[in-house]
Amino acid sequence: MSVPDTYTTLEQRFQRRSRIQDALAILHWDSSTLMPDGAVGGRTDQIAELSLIAREILLDPMTSDLLDSTEANRSALSGWQSRNLDLMRREHTLATAVPSDLVEALQRAGAASEMCWRTARPGNDFAAQRPHLEEIFRLTREAAASRAAALGLSPYDAQLELFEPGLRDADIAPVFDDLSGWLPDLVDDILTRQGAGPQPVQPVGPFPVPAQKTLGEGLMAALGFDFSQGRLDESAHPFTGGVPDDVRLTTRYTTDGFAEALMGILHETGHALYEQGLPVDWRGQPVGGSGGMALHESQSLAVEMQLCRGPAFARYLSPQVSAAFGGQPAFDAANLASLVTRVKRGLIRVDADEATYPLHIIVRYRLEKALLSGDLSIADLPGAWNDVMAELVGVRPPDDRDGCLQDIHWMDGAVGYFPTYTLGALAAAQLTAAVRRALPDLDDQVARGDFSAFLKWLREKVHALALSRTTGEIIADATGAPLSADAFRAHLRTRYLGS
Amino acid sequence: MSVPDTYTTLEQRFQRRSRIQDALAILHWDSSTLMPDGAVGGRTDQIAELSLIAREILLDPMTSDLLDSTEANRSALSGWQSRNLDLMRREHTLATAVPSDLVEALQRAGAASEMCWRTARPGNDFAAQRPHLEEIFRLTREAAASRAAALGLSPYDAQLELFEPGLRDADIAPVFDDLSGWLPDLVDDILTRQGAGPQPVQPVGPFPVPAQKTLGEGLMAALGFDFSQGRLDESAHPFTGGVPDDVRLTTRYTTDGFAEALMGILHETGHALYEQGLPVDWRGQPVGGSGGMALHESQSLAVEMQLCRGPAFARYLSPQVSAAFGGQPAFDAANLASLVTRVKRGLIRVDADEATYPLHIIVRYRLEKALLSGDLSIADLPGAWNDVMAELVGVRPPDDRDGCLQDIHWMDGAVGYFPTYTLGALAAAQLTAAVRRALPDLDDQVARGDFSAFLKWLREKVHALALSRTTGEIIADATGAPLSADAFRAHLRTRYLGS
Repeated sequence: MSVPDTYTTLEQRFQRRSRIQDALAILHWDSSTLMPDGAVGGRTDQIAELSLIAREILLDPMTSDLLDSTEANRSALSGWQSRNLDLMRREHTLATAVPSDLVEALQRAGAASEMCWRTARPGNDFAAQRPHLEEIFRLTREAAASRAAALGLSPYDAQLELFEPGLRDADIAPVFDDLSGWLPDLVDDILTRQGAGPQPVQPVGPFPVPAQKTLGEGLMAALGFDFSQGRLDESAHPFTGGVPDDVRLTTRYTTDGFAEALMGILHETGHALYEQGLPVDWRGQPVGGSGGMALHESQSLAVEMQLCRGPAFARYLSPQVSAAFGGQPAFDAANLASLVTRVKRGLIRVDADEATYPLHIIVRYRLEKALLSGDLSIADLPGAWNDVMAELVGVRPPDDRDGCLQDIHWMDGAVGYFPTYTLGALAAAQLTAAVRRALPDLDDQVARGDFSAFLKWLREKVHALALSRTTGEIIADATGAPLSADAFRAHLRTRYLGS
Repeated sequence: MSVPDTYTTLEQRFQRRSRIQDALAILHWDSSTLMPDGAVGGRTDQIAELSLIAREILLDPMTSDLLDSTEANRSALSGWQSRNLDLMRREHTLATAVPSDLVEALQRAGAASEMCWRTARPGNDFAAQRPHLEEIFRLTREAAASRAAALGLSPYDAQLELFEPGLRDADIAPVFDDLSGWLPDLVDDILTRQGAGPQPVQPVGPFPVPAQKTLGEGLMAALGFDFSQGRLDESAHPFTGGVPDDVRLTTRYTTDGFAEALMGILHETGHALYEQGLPVDWRGQPVGGSGGMALHESQSLAVEMQLCRGPAFARYLSPQVSAAFGGQPAFDAANLASLVTRVKRGLIRVDADEATYPLHIIVRYRLEKALLSGDLSIADLPGAWNDVMAELVGVRPPDDRDGCLQDIHWMDGAVGYFPTYTLGALAAAQLTAAVRRALPDLDDQVARGDFSAFLKWLREKVHALALSRTTGEIIADATGAPLSADAFRAHLRTRYLGS
């Protein structure tokens, strides 16, 4: 049986849509890195126009007809084509479920809310942010209800679906319950041990930016980053943007230290390697894209947290840091490894270490579910935030600046995003444990700067599969078990308690 | 009478088109400055897709209907609106006159030709380039014939219309005849005088790039460039790109010298000031855009050639160059002025001084007319090129690399572009002469780094008018006379012969 013409036409439509989205990705990257301040109005218009054109391809009634006709001939499709059809249908449903005026209202409200947040957060002004948050959650509740009805899901599951296809709260709840059961005690044990042991020697700056950049680029190349299809630049907040054949990652340098910028580069390199490893044959089709945010985060954390903050990588890194900045006692390999694995009960998620990070996430997970359902009002958010922080992380924010105002996600309507960070951390641990079983001498390879077998494993088991399977299937197939917190717990015990 | 709804709808359509073209402008800029090599295929697809979407807005039958309906109510439009309608019609006619398959064939042939040229030029391989040039001219002839029929013009005038709205060969021919009559003799006189006088002291490098960049940015700011709506970057070939609220100019640095990169920056700053001075109220509409390439070049040359290569600017520049690189005899003001006004009979247009440059252009003007009409075959181009170069510039190229293969324009199908360079130079001289009449102490202002009155004059007489009038009308109104070579001749005599 030959592939139906309707399917071929759909591929062309999604290819066109993908090219518009690729152009948008470059414009977004430019907005965050190079664009002068005075261009923000015009750029916003350009992005809105291209986004609308991309959306119109989905809303066109012909797209719906083509999906239905192809559905009737699904048996003529290959496995990837059939999955591609499912993902086309998913994008179509997500787009058509929400009326265009609500989409626009959310965009406008998000932009206004984010603009307010830029001053409300440093000004510790929850009162100023509150009406924006109320509007954002009101509109998000409405959009989630529409998507939930179209997908046959609960509203929170409809939000999760936006960030990780197929992820349901029923997958998250037991894992987060498990974590909140044992992780606070484990953090206690780690803090006791780190407090009793010797403290790491601090590096002495200044660390010139050009030397930091050269060191970072060298490590990126060693890890397998292809500079003929990507770049390293600077931005206020590190991120990975661009498109698979032009992956653009950023970091933020200070001259006081080098570890934070460097670990930022290594984290984004994990994201970038995933994008560069997506199958070329399926570029521009939904099935050829990267998995959801949880799987994406697992790739950045496998590189940064699992590999590059470990003792084997520190042995590889130590002479390079000395070559870049001149030798000093802090650059001893064991000291470097100690420096990048300090644990602390802190107020700020983005500054958190890998042990306390999941607790920050569970705080947000509990609160955003309550905010979305309406069980918690925005007015009550600051107090609730501080209570859950005290309960889970063990510190109580003195103000909202370092409390419920610290993250941009909710301000912008990204409800359901936070859990993917921790699911990604658990998946990174579980995948890396599987890599270690397959490559018993991984640490020796890493210590001598040979990352090829590690990357090959990720390429085959994760990157090359793109969206042909769900994140749950990919992890279960690669590791032999469904995603759980077990490998993460074992990793923390090994790294921090030596057991 | 109120503005017809059909006109408002047209403005919305052209606004949408403009936003797509603005996005394209940023993507093109990125392609020439930052994009890694491996992304060229994907970027080409993105650009082709967005270009097609922009073209489809014009080809939509509804656009034609709206133009006709509005035409019937033209009396309800303001002067700018009426001119906007004319320019909308012009863009519509230019787009619809050429069948889409011919547009695509020209794009493909241009891309292939340009790709070949990148090796054929350094390899001095005319035989390799010849079939591409034949195809380009065959397709260009076909497209020019279609546009000529739609516009009621000759084929060459239809080509000129692409680069300078309203420009006709009847405007060019007498001016170029005039120039070719007296300019070769004037060049003789200049060379005799420069040969007999003292030779300028050459600057001694190296000139570190960061110091060059800081100096250039300082001069841009002094001239009035608004860095909140623009940037300075690097590229292989200097250009001004971006959009009016995000003007991106580039230069190319070497550490052996600083004058070439600096004059490149000042040239592009002239282009950039024009874009930044376009009326904000008409952004996104055809009437709000910059004039053709001749008027654009007049703005860059008024800044670079007329102002910044003159003795008053050298007095302003001299202490700044010393501050940037440390003092040396070459940085004396009179010596700097001498360095940037040396005249030479050369083979290469882009390296030519302002006195011989028009002769290079007239070579190309004569040949491209003959190539387009078919009076000259591509096979006979190299010999014809060398003959006309010997006749007009007074040097005979030893090979095609430094002869007919040197420019990218024809390789890419840009036939009718070259004359705008020289028309721009003549306009720059005529406009600057008018500025001098209005500002008798201009040189004193320039010598102390005050460019505000100069910029204000250009803003009012040129920039603020956008495309509300033709280039011919703008120049005649600003200077009191139609465009001619008279002011240019007087300028050359004053600067180079002291009379």
